[in-house]
Amino acid sequence: MSTTEYQVTGMTCGHCEMSVREEVEQIAGVESVDVSAKTGRLVVTAEKALDDSDVLAAVEEAGYSAVRA
Amino acid sequence: MSTTEYQVTGMTCGHCEMSVREEVEQIAGVESVDVSAKTGRLVVTAEKALDDSDVLAAVEEAGYSAVRA
Repeated sequence: MSTTEYQVTGMTCGHCEMSVREEVEQIAGVESVDVSAKTGRLVVTAEKALDDSDVLAAVEEAGYSAVRA
Repeated sequence: MSTTEYQVTGMTCGHCEMSVREEVEQIAGVESVDVSAKTGRLVVTAEKALDDSDVLAAVEEAGYSAVRA
């Protein structure tokens, strides 16, 4: 089990959170996604360590940018 | 043809605009919907004058509140 935290820029509301969640949940091995527009915090729990680049690409696909926190 | 303007509170992003647009477009007779999260302005064009209460209810259904401008 691996939990990783990212900082996302540009989310403003619950719809934004949902967009990020939907993209990140599609990454193979992801078990839970916790995301807050208010803090910009994205916490991803997966079976094993994910490639950061996959998570960052998923966030970009949703229309936002992120960095590993 | 009737064009009516409303002021919507609480929209923060394009997803919010889309939520409002989708609900308002479902009102019978609506021909076009122009909505801006930035200004909160919602302009509805319909075949004939709409009931304000129908428009306000649609905005509430989307999760926001509005008044006739």
